[in-house]
Amino acid sequence: MNKTKIFYKKMKFNKPVMIVGLPGIGNVGSMVCEHIKNEIGAKKFATLYSPHFPHQAIMLKNGMLRLVNNRFYYAKNAVKHGKEKHDLIILLGDIQAMTPEGQYDINEKIVRFFKHLGGHEIYTIAGYNSAKGKAENQKVFGLTTDKKMIETLKRHGIIFGEAQGTIFGASGLIVAFGKKHMIPSACIMGETEMLDVDADAAKRVLEVLQGVLGISISMENIDHLIKATRKMMRDIEEMVKESEGGAMPAPNPENFTYIR
Amino acid sequence: MNKTKIFYKKMKFNKPVMIVGLPGIGNVGSMVCEHIKNEIGAKKFATLYSPHFPHQAIMLKNGMLRLVNNRFYYAKNAVKHGKEKHDLIILLGDIQAMTPEGQYDINEKIVRFFKHLGGHEIYTIAGYNSAKGKAENQKVFGLTTDKKMIETLKRHGIIFGEAQGTIFGASGLIVAFGKKHMIPSACIMGETEMLDVDADAAKRVLEVLQGVLGISISMENIDHLIKATRKMMRDIEEMVKESEGGAMPAPNPENFTYIR
Amino acid sequence: MNKTKIFYKKMKFNKPVMIVGLPGIGNVGSMVCEHIKNEIGAKKFATLYSPHFPHQAIMLKNGMLRLVNNRFYYAKNAVKHGKEKHDLIILLGDIQAMTPEGQYDINEKIVRFFKHLGGHEIYTIAGYNSAKGKAENQKVFGLTTDKKMIETLKRHGIIFGEAQGTIFGASGLIVAFGKKHMIPSACIMGETEMLDVDADAAKRVLEVLQGVLGISISMENIDHLIKATRKMMRDIEEMVKESEGGAMPAPNPENFTYIR
Amino acid sequence: MNKTKIFYKKMKFNKPVMIVGLPGIGNVGSMVCEHIKNEIGAKKFATLYSPHFPHQAIMLKNGMLRLVNNRFYYAKNAVKHGKEKHDLIILLGDIQAMTPEGQYDINEKIVRFFKHLGGHEIYTIAGYNSAKGKAENQKVFGLTTDKKMIETLKRHGIIFGEAQGTIFGASGLIVAFGKKHMIPSACIMGETEMLDVDADAAKRVLEVLQGVLGISISMENIDHLIKATRKMMRDIEEMVKESEGGAMPAPNPENFTYIR
Repeated sequence: MNKTKIFYKKMKFNKPVMIVGLPGIGNVGSMVCEHIKNEIGAKKFATLYSPHFPHQAIMLKNGMLRLVNNRFYYAKNAVKHGKEKHDLIILLGDIQAMTPEGQYDINEKIVRFFKHLGGHEIYTIAGYNSAKGKAENQKVFGLTTDKKMIETLKRHGIIFGEAQGTIFGASGLIVAFGKKHMIPSACIMGETEMLDVDADAAKRVLEVLQGVLGISISMENIDHLIKATRKMMRDIEEMVKESEGGAMPAPNPENFTYIR
Repeated sequence: MNKTKIFYKKMKFNKPVMIVGLPGIGNVGSMVCEHIKNEIGAKKFATLYSPHFPHQAIMLKNGMLRLVNNRFYYAKNAVKHGKEKHDLIILLGDIQAMTPEGQYDINEKIVRFFKHLGGHEIYTIAGYNSAKGKAENQKVFGLTTDKKMIETLKRHGIIFGEAQGTIFGASGLIVAFGKKHMIPSACIMGETEMLDVDADAAKRVLEVLQGVLGISISMENIDHLIKATRKMMRDIEEMVKESEGGAMPAPNPENFTYIR
Repeated sequence: MNKTKIFYKKMKFNKPVMIVGLPGIGNVGSMVCEHIKNEIGAKKFATLYSPHFPHQAIMLKNGMLRLVNNRFYYAKNAVKHGKEKHDLIILLGDIQAMTPEGQYDINEKIVRFFKHLGGHEIYTIAGYNSAKGKAENQKVFGLTTDKKMIETLKRHGIIFGEAQGTIFGASGLIVAFGKKHMIPSACIMGETEMLDVDADAAKRVLEVLQGVLGISISMENIDHLIKATRKMMRDIEEMVKESEGGAMPAPNPENFTYIR
Repeated sequence: MNKTKIFYKKMKFNKPVMIVGLPGIGNVGSMVCEHIKNEIGAKKFATLYSPHFPHQAIMLKNGMLRLVNNRFYYAKNAVKHGKEKHDLIILLGDIQAMTPEGQYDINEKIVRFFKHLGGHEIYTIAGYNSAKGKAENQKVFGLTTDKKMIETLKRHGIIFGEAQGTIFGASGLIVAFGKKHMIPSACIMGETEMLDVDADAAKRVLEVLQGVLGISISMENIDHLIKATRKMMRDIEEMVKESEGGAMPAPNPENFTYIR
C-alpha cells in the first residue's frame, strides 16, 4: 500500500458541512467532534488509510484488530443555517501523519473527497496553546481562508485577529486547501494552557459551535468523555515510563469512544 | 533499486497456510517460526529485498555477503486441518522496515504474493509485552480480522478480547492486509515481560500453534536456538556500548540459524 | 498535494536579475532582500508551495491563515548594469525544506521557473559563519559557478577564494543549479559570528549589493527591520522554552514585514 | 532534481576493473583509492549527483562552488591480470546517502553504470572495525558475492570467513548489486580500531591491492595524504564543538586531495 486511500459507501449528501476533530493540542478537536458524533448518532460511511500513518494496528475489545485510520461520519440534515438545512459530516481519527509530505498528501485528499461529496463548508476544531493565558479568561479564536466568514463567525463569539503564530497539521492545512478548492473553511480554536486534555476548552468550543451549526447538543455525557480521555492520557504516560521506550500495549482504545 | 521485490522459484502450492516470524518483541515470532522451519526441514523458495530495509549487508561464515532480506520457506502438506492437508509457508527475516511507508509497502506486497500463490490462511506470530504480567500466568493472545476464526482458535487455548493497545509492524499489518485481500488472518501473541528474548513465551506459542496447524514439533532442539538467540542479543548490546555509536561488526549471524 | 508547485501571474520580464533571500545564517539573506523589496516597492507575482515545507500554516493579523511558502516579487527596470536595464525579481520565504530530497526538488524548480521567465543572472544572499572572525574586520565573500563573474564582483569589494567549507540549502543549491541551466549565478555572503540576526552583516552586504545591481537603497528603514527581526528571534526562543517542546504560538509574523 | 543522475563523457573502456573508495570507517577506502588515483594520474570522466546526498555545496579554493557528489576516474590499461590488461575505474566521493532508500538507489545506479561501460570486476575498499583487534596483528579481510573470487584473493593475503557482522552502505551494497548484475565483486576491508583515520589499515590494504590489481604504487606520498586527512578530521571535530550545532564552515576541502 503506497498511497492514501479513502474507502466509502456511495451516498448523496445535501450541501454537507464538515467538522474536523483530529488528535492535537489539548485534544480539543477530538473531544468536541466525538461528543457531537455521539449525541447526534452520526454513522460512519468512509475510512481513510494511509502509509503516512504509523505502521500500527489497534487491538479491539472483541478480539479484532484494525489499522490506525481517519473516519468520516454523517448525520442527515443536522445543520441549520437559518431556514436551510445541511447534512453534517464529522471527521475523526486515531492519528495524524508525522511527516510534511504525509500531511500535505492526506489533508488535500480529505478536502478533495469532501468536495466530491458536494462539500459546502468546513470547520476544523483545534486547541490554541496560550502560554500566558489564564483559564478564567480563555477564549475561542477563529482563522479562515475566506474573508466573508469572519463577520458571521464573530457574531457567534469567535474572535478573529488575536491568535498569533503557526498551526501544525490538519487544522491549518485543511483550511488552506479549502481555499484552493473553493470551499469556505475556518479553524475554530479553544484557548488552552494544557497540551493533553483540556475539558473546559472543549466545552467553550462546543457552546460556540452549536451556534455556528444551528445545532443543539446536550452537555450531559461530555464529562464521561473527558474523564475517559484524561485517564487514557495518564495511562499512556505511565506505560511509556514503564516500558522505557520499548514496544508496549496502549490502553484499550475501545474504552474511549473517541478513538473507537 | 527503488522498489520492494520478491524473487522466487515458480512452484504450485496446495492451499498454503503461511506463518510469519519476523524480529519483534521478545523475538517470539522469529524463534517459533525458525524452530518449525528447522524441525520440518522447510526449503527456501523466495526472497524479498527492499530499499526500505537498512542499507546493510550481512557477512556470512563462508566469506560471502548478502543484503538483509526476508525469506519464504515451504514444506509440502505439513499442515493438517482435520483430514485436509495444506502446504506450509514460513516467512522469516533479518529485519523489518523502519518507516511507515516501508512497512505499508512491504507488508501488503507479502500478502499479495501469498495470495498469488493461492494463499489460504495467515498466522503472524508475535510477542505481547505485558508490563504487569507475571511469568507463571502468561497467556497466548489472539487477534484477527476474520470473526469466524475466533471460535476455532479459542478451542486451541488462544485468548481473544483481552489484549489491549496497539501492535507495531508486520504482525498487525499483515493481518489487516489479509482482510483487504480476503485471506483469513490472525495474529498469535505470546505474553512476555521481556523485550529481547523470551524462551518461555516462544514455547507456549509453539504448543498452541501445533494444535492450530495440526502439526507435531519436537521441542528438543529449541533450547539451543534460545541460547543462541540470547547470546546474540547480549553480544549486540555489548558491542553497541563499545562502539559508542560508530559502525561495528555484529555477531556472526551464521551462528544463529534463525537469521541465516 | 504531492508536488512542489508555483502559482504565478503571467507577465513579461526584461532580462530579469533575481536575488534570493531565504531564512538562514544570521538572517542576512532575508533581511537584505526584504529591505530591498520594501524600499523599491516590489510586487508579488508568484508563490511556491511544497509538501517538503513543514506542515504549518501562519496566522495572519487579519484573522486569515496561509500555508508557509516562498514568494517571488518583481520591480520593472530596477537593475542597472552600465546603461542596460533589467527587471529585478526577489525571492523571499518563511522557510526552507528540511530534507535533501525537498531541497533538491524545490531549488531546481526555482531555477527552472526563473529560466522560464527569461532569467539573466542570479544572486543568492547568505550569512557566512566565521567562528574566528572579529566583527570590525568582517567581509563580504562570494562564490560562483561562472568563472566570468568573479572579476566583476571583485570590483565591488566581494572577496573570492577565502571562504571555506560547505553551504547548506538554497544559497548553494540555486547557484549550482544555475550552472546546470546556464544562468550565471553567484552567492554573496556576509561574514558573521551570529547565527540568529546579524544587522551589521546585512548592512555590509546591502552596500556591496547596491554596486552589483546598480541600485540605490536608503538605509533609513533598515534599523526598524533589524529590531523587529531581533525581537522575533527572542520571542521564538522564549516561547520554545516555555512550551517545553509542545506546539506553541509563534510571534505574529505580521509584525515582521520580512515574513509577511 | 528528483533523481540520481550520472553525467559522463562517452568513452570506450577495455574490460574495466572498478575500485570504490567512499567515506566510511577509518577513511580506509577513501585514502586507498585517492592515493591510487593520484599516483597513476587517473582522469575524471563522470560525476554522480543525487537528491539523496545532503543539500550541501562545497566552497572551492578558487571561489567556485559545487554540489557534493561522487566521481568516476579512469586510467587506461592500468590493471594487469597475468598477461591481460584492463582499464581501471576509480570511484571517489564526498559523501554517501544517509537513508536506506538513497543508498539502494545510488549504489545500484553505480553498478548499472559500470555494467553499461562493459564492467569486468569490482572491488569496494572499506575499513572493518574490530573492537578487540590489536594494531600489530591487524589483517585484511575479504567478502564477496562470487565464490570463484575467494581462492584468487586468498593468494594475495586476503582473509575470508573470519569477518563477522554487517557492513553499512556502498561497500556492501555495491558487492551485492554486483551479483544481481553478474559482475564479479568483492569487498576488501582493512581491520582497524579507529573510526576516523587509520593510516596503517590503509597501507596494509594498499599493499594487498597492488597484488590484486597487478599494479605498482609508490607509498612515498601517502603520508602527506594521511596527515591531511587527520588534520581535516580534527578541524571538523573542533568546529562542530564551536558552532554548537549551528551551520558552520567546514575546513577547505581543496586542501585535501581526496575530496577534491
